[in-house]
Amino acid sequence: MFKRITIIGVGLIGGSIGLACKKRALSDEVFGVCRRKSSLKKALSSGAIDGGGLDIEKGLEGAGLVIIASPVKGILPIVKKVMRNAEKGSIVTDVGSAKALIVKEVEKIKNVRANFVGSHPMAGSEKSGVENAEINMFEKAPVIITRTKNTDKRSISVLRKFWERLGAEVSIVSPDRHDALVALSSYLPHAVSAAVSLSQNPGSVILAAGSLRDTTRVSASDPELWKDIFIQARNSALESIRLFSGNLKALERAIRKKDERAISAILKRAKRISERIRR
Amino acid sequence: MFKRITIIGVGLIGGSIGLACKKRALSDEVFGVCRRKSSLKKALSSGAIDGGGLDIEKGLEGAGLVIIASPVKGILPIVKKVMRNAEKGSIVTDVGSAKALIVKEVEKIKNVRANFVGSHPMAGSEKSGVENAEINMFEKAPVIITRTKNTDKRSISVLRKFWERLGAEVSIVSPDRHDALVALSSYLPHAVSAAVSLSQNPGSVILAAGSLRDTTRVSASDPELWKDIFIQARNSALESIRLFSGNLKALERAIRKKDERAISAILKRAKRISERIRR
Repeated sequence: MFKRITIIGVGLIGGSIGLACKKRALSDEVFGVCRRKSSLKKALSSGAIDGGGLDIEKGLEGAGLVIIASPVKGILPIVKKVMRNAEKGSIVTDVGSAKALIVKEVEKIKNVRANFVGSHPMAGSEKSGVENAEINMFEKAPVIITRTKNTDKRSISVLRKFWERLGAEVSIVSPDRHDALVALSSYLPHAVSAAVSLSQNPGSVILAAGSLRDTTRVSASDPELWKDIFIQARNSALESIRLFSGNLKALERAIRKKDERAISAILKRAKRISERIRR
Repeated sequence: MFKRITIIGVGLIGGSIGLACKKRALSDEVFGVCRRKSSLKKALSSGAIDGGGLDIEKGLEGAGLVIIASPVKGILPIVKKVMRNAEKGSIVTDVGSAKALIVKEVEKIKNVRANFVGSHPMAGSEKSGVENAEINMFEKAPVIITRTKNTDKRSISVLRKFWERLGAEVSIVSPDRHDALVALSSYLPHAVSAAVSLSQNPGSVILAAGSLRDTTRVSASDPELWKDIFIQARNSALESIRLFSGNLKALERAIRKKDERAISAILKRAKRISERIRR
C-alpha cells in the first residue's frame, strides 16, 4: 500500500502496528522514530520496525503514511511538526484515545503539507512497551476513524483500507461523537475500575475472586496516560460518570427499599446488555 | 474423610464440589439431592455424583458431611430441615455468598442433631448449571468459613481440612466480617458492573474493547441469585456502594477541576491495589 510507513513512538501500540504491517507487507519499509536511543534499540530488536531514528523530520522522508503512536499528551506538538514537514499529500494519523481536542487543534495548523485523519484503535492492554506488542492486536479490534467537514475523503478511504488490512473493524464518526461513545466504552470502565480498586482493604484483597479481578484489571493501566486522557476528554468523561452514577443510584435505592422487583429488573437489563457486549 | 457426602443442589458449585470430591476420593460416596428429576438426571450423567434422589431426608442417611449448594434464597428452609434430620454429630455447611443473616437464623433453630458451619467458596463464574461444573474450581480459590462463639470447634477444623483438600485457601472469620469483606470483593463488583452495562448504548457496545468487556462480564450473572444476595446482605452491600461512590466522586472532582496532580495520585494508588489483587 505504501513505500514507507513511519511510526512515531514505537511502544505497545506502535510496535504492534509495525509487526502487523510487516506481516501483511503493507509497505516496503516500516520506519520507527523513537525519543530515546534505548527505546529505538528495543524497537529494532523486537522486529517491529525495519529501520529507525531519533529525528522526526528525517523519519518523514518518503513516508506515504505517518502514524503518531506517542502518549496522548505528546501527540499535539508532534502532529504540528509532522503536518508541516511530511511528504506532500501523505496521510498522517494518530492513535490517541481522545479525539475531539486533537482534531480541533490539528485543523488550526497553518501551512500543512499532509492530510490528517484521526484514528483510535481500541486495542491494547494494561501493559505497555514494545516488548508487549502483539502481531495480531488489531484482529477484530474496533478502530474508529474521525471525519469532519474538513477531512480529506480520499485519505479517509485509504486509512480505512489500511486498518481493515490489519484485521480491524472500522467505524467512521465525528470527533465529538467519538469522545462521547468512547467515554462510555473505555473512559468510564477505567474510572470505575480505579474506584473499585480504591475501595478495597487488605482483607478484601485476599478474597479476590473473578468478579474483583475482572473489574479492577484495567485500573492497572498507566496512570500518566489515563490522567492525560481524562484531562483531554474531560467533558465526555464527566458526562459518562454522571450517567453511570445515576444507574448505580437506582440500584442502590432499590436495595435500600428492599424492592425485589426493581432489583431484578435492573439486573436483568444489565445482563442483556452485558451479553450483547460479549457477542 | 467421610463415608458419604451429600450435596443438596447439584448446580455449578454443587456439581464442581462433587467432581472434586470424587477426584480426590474424599468419601466412599457422593450423593446428590435435586429438586427436579431432570436436574438429577443431568447431575448423574455429568459424573458429579455417584447416586442421588429428590428427597432431602432420605439423602441425609449415613452422610457425615452435608453441603447445601442451593441458591441463596432457598438455603434457610433447607438448612432447618437438615439440622433436625441429619445424622447425629454430622457436619452441615452451605456455600451461600451472604452469611450474617443465614448464620444468625441457623443458630435459632431448636432440636438440632448436627453441627452447622457456614462456608463461602469464592469461585464460580457468570455461568450456572452442572453442565458448567469444573473439577478444579476450588484450586487456589479463597474459601471463607464462618465462626461464632456457638460454632463447634472440631467441625470447623474438619471443614477446613475438607476445603483445603479441594485445593482452596481457607480464611476463618465471623459472619459479619465475612459480609463486610465480601461486599467489597464481590457484591460491589457486581453492582458496579451492572451500572456500567446499563450506561451503554448501541453505539458504545460496538466499540467494546477489553476494558468494557472486563468490567461488564460479571453483570451477566444470574439476576435472581444476585437479587437475593443484595437483599440478604443489604447493609454490607449498601455500605460498599457508599464507599465506592466516595472514591469515584473524588476522581470526578479532580477531573472537573483539571487537577492533574490529584488525578495522577488517585490512579497511581488504584494501580498499586489492582496489582496487589492480581498477585
